[in-house]
Amino acid sequence: MGELLEKLKAYAESDYYPYHMPGHKRRLGGSVLSAVSGLDITEIDGFDNLHEPTDIIKKIQQKSADIYGAEESFYLINGSTAGIISAISTAVPEGGKILMARGCHRSAYHGAYLRGLQIRYLVAEIEPDFGCNLGMTSIQVEQALTEDEDIQAVFLVSPTYEGIVSDIGAIADVVHRKGIPLIVDEAHGAHFGFHPAWPKSSCSCGADIVIQSLHKTLPSPTQTAILHVNGKLVDRQRLKRFLNIYQSSSPSYLFMAAMEEALDLVALKADRLFGDFLRNWNIMLERLSECHCLHFLQKANMDIGKLVIADKSGHMTGRQLYESLLHTYHLQPEMAAGNYVLAMFTVGDTEEGYHRMTEALLAIDEAIYSQYGTDMDEVACGESKENESSKQLKGPKLPPHELSLKEAWEGEKEDVPLEEAKGRVAGEFINLYPPGIPILVPGECFTAELCDYIQDCVTKGFHVQGMRQDNTVTVLK
Amino acid sequence: MGELLEKLKAYAESDYYPYHMPGHKRRLGGSVLSAVSGLDITEIDGFDNLHEPTDIIKKIQQKSADIYGAEESFYLINGSTAGIISAISTAVPEGGKILMARGCHRSAYHGAYLRGLQIRYLVAEIEPDFGCNLGMTSIQVEQALTEDEDIQAVFLVSPTYEGIVSDIGAIADVVHRKGIPLIVDEAHGAHFGFHPAWPKSSCSCGADIVIQSLHKTLPSPTQTAILHVNGKLVDRQRLKRFLNIYQSSSPSYLFMAAMEEALDLVALKADRLFGDFLRNWNIMLERLSECHCLHFLQKANMDIGKLVIADKSGHMTGRQLYESLLHTYHLQPEMAAGNYVLAMFTVGDTEEGYHRMTEALLAIDEAIYSQYGTDMDEVACGESKENESSKQLKGPKLPPHELSLKEAWEGEKEDVPLEEAKGRVAGEFINLYPPGIPILVPGECFTAELCDYIQDCVTKGFHVQGMRQDNTVTVLK
Repeated sequence: MGELLEKLKAYAESDYYPYHMPGHKRRLGGSVLSAVSGLDITEIDGFDNLHEPTDIIKKIQQKSADIYGAEESFYLINGSTAGIISAISTAVPEGGKILMARGCHRSAYHGAYLRGLQIRYLVAEIEPDFGCNLGMTSIQVEQALTEDEDIQAVFLVSPTYEGIVSDIGAIADVVHRKGIPLIVDEAHGAHFGFHPAWPKSSCSCGADIVIQSLHKTLPSPTQTAILHVNGKLVDRQRLKRFLNIYQSSSPSYLFMAAMEEALDLVALKADRLFGDFLRNWNIMLERLSECHCLHFLQKANMDIGKLVIADKSGHMTGRQLYESLLHTYHLQPEMAAGNYVLAMFTVGDTEEGYHRMTEALLAIDEAIYSQYGTDMDEVACGESKENESSKQLKGPKLPPHELSLKEAWEGEKEDVPLEEAKGRVAGEFINLYPPGIPILVPGECFTAELCDYIQDCVTKGFHVQGMRQDNTVTVLK
Repeated sequence: MGELLEKLKAYAESDYYPYHMPGHKRRLGGSVLSAVSGLDITEIDGFDNLHEPTDIIKKIQQKSADIYGAEESFYLINGSTAGIISAISTAVPEGGKILMARGCHRSAYHGAYLRGLQIRYLVAEIEPDFGCNLGMTSIQVEQALTEDEDIQAVFLVSPTYEGIVSDIGAIADVVHRKGIPLIVDEAHGAHFGFHPAWPKSSCSCGADIVIQSLHKTLPSPTQTAILHVNGKLVDRQRLKRFLNIYQSSSPSYLFMAAMEEALDLVALKADRLFGDFLRNWNIMLERLSECHCLHFLQKANMDIGKLVIADKSGHMTGRQLYESLLHTYHLQPEMAAGNYVLAMFTVGDTEEGYHRMTEALLAIDEAIYSQYGTDMDEVACGESKENESSKQLKGPKLPPHELSLKEAWEGEKEDVPLEEAKGRVAGEFINLYPPGIPILVPGECFTAELCDYIQDCVTKGFHVQGMRQDNTVTVLK
């Protein structure tokens, strides 16, 4: 049992009566709360303080650091969001400059906005068959750092949503030669490093700050995450300041206890949990290799557990595959993109989960093949017939920018129809969702090419955040 | 059953298999998570999105707004902290000016810091017998607004930690005459408005934004809160932007379901829950009126449920009362201040809770009286013999400031012994904890009087945040 949980249980079972928060007094509540209310306390005597830890919370955070090979770790009870905003706020002075992957999570943009940063973007190569982002290379990073001496920190995402891992070791070398810190959003990689078949965590590859969502791939509740820090390039006091600012001053002990338990569980049972995971995964992939039309993203440096599924014959879009899995088979995928669907597997899956997905995909594949079999022979040797959606996702090139994110987002705005937006400066994010990569960041210009692209996405039924139902967008006055 | 909970349960009991986050797949996990993991999901089909609600989350938020009589309400899964920072970021432009109670929560200071605000302070009168802050008056607010035409928003705390309620209606009138918004940190008042014996919520008294911690006084999990907005002085789009920035993009459905349940529970059973609460409270106070030495804060406009206990004979400090309740009686109070201890009662308390507190306080009172009985007769008629701790908490006057909070907190710093800090500018907060009111805010000067006061607090055993074990403090270079 986790140490924090043990203390919470002992307190719950004692004769101490609570004249303190929370107001449910460990008893009153609806059925969700009642299941755990006995353990839901606040910073009373003996239970330390997440924002100034000296005792039990300090101890369990250090235990997490040891598990990941980090010097220091911080529990995040406001998700990776809090960690990402804190990391960016710490690493770059107000108004400074950051080198950032264009495809990074919106919280990274929010961090840059809050601190008035200038952003230089790294644009990922697109995987030709699936249309998803590839990782970043040390050459790309080095080139940007050479061209732009003002950059004060680098922010990357690895693995990507689809599981592509960048060579963080090589990138860290390049970044450190400039004497600046590397922040890695490893939200999808909290399970790295527990088993030799998986990639190593960025934590042990030289990254200075690494943020991991514990809930995404480990058995921890939604909204729990952890931030690791290494080396001397990050001002730890400053980091603590921002973590204290961006996180609740009433942090959930339920979350903290569950996080400790999750890490204890995977650390202690790593061999069995990840061994079973790997075996089930390999059996599934082996069977799926019989598919005629469906294919699955496979790269040299890739996470295990992200099943990226596309129809190489081009007859089914990602959305159609998603709908079929969901409605016909009652299998809820993680997301649909242009021409692929993403299904996530973790240590939490059962054999049934692998079996049902395998059978469903074989059946879908069979259905496509039996309907379009003749066409198929033309593409059978792997030359993917690129479908419309795939083209679409590749997107236009980076638009020119007129103002910084902060200047634009804080500016005076108005709404205009998309067709009148050409030449105007964006006042809100325009994101293609999923995966949520910005088409336009506030401060960037609506070019003719971009307006056409956005209209095209809407016409094809994609969800374009920042575009209203009446076809208007927000621009600066 | 709450509507969200009902949907979560139906999904958990269906044959849909999750190939999505969270990684526990609604089954794997330690014992804390396992108790609720079946209901812990992410934004899958049919479950809406806290950050762009259109369906079930929009509906339950509107239900909450209706309960409190607000136009619009937002669930906060990062506690009142997220609501307070968002409210301040929304109401005042970057670099603008805010009128703020000096005794407000640190998250309000954090909001002012993040946005580079200038702060003008309202300083509360001190309650003479207990040494705690009184509320703010409309006269104080009006005077500040008249003297300072640049103020763009007003931020107050009501009720205070100790339960003192300000006349928000009169203050809102004064603030609105200037055409600016009033933000009320009602973190301790989520239970207001459910029963006529309690004060009304600021929501129905004219405040523009009201932030309430649901966990503090209602049966909701720690770290859950709600923000209400009314009127036309607050830019709702801007408010939503900041709520999206400061809160996790993976919000906990467990929290959201529990929040809905908590509000349903108290709204539906208000008469019984608050009726029992009131009856038990009155019985306790009636019996405690027999005390010779202990007295209890009672004001015309005060919350019911905050038992503020002091020894008017001056023989026991707040800390001593706290230790006695905790160690002798196993009653865990909320906090100890200079000469008083605070015990919180809510709808969650049992008759046993009232009974044990009553018996303990009568016994402590008896012990003081039997030991110091003769002295007591001198003070029996209510003239409190002011003890050392009470004097201390009254604190020195506001220090002069040299720099804004942001300029100072971002500045180059060094640590010096307290005795060498005279005349220097503070680089970190110096807070007396509890209740956490700042003695010095970054940018303010260490005067001789303040240095003596801080040393005095430390000598008397108070916890002074920002003062290190080696007696050093952080100042600007």
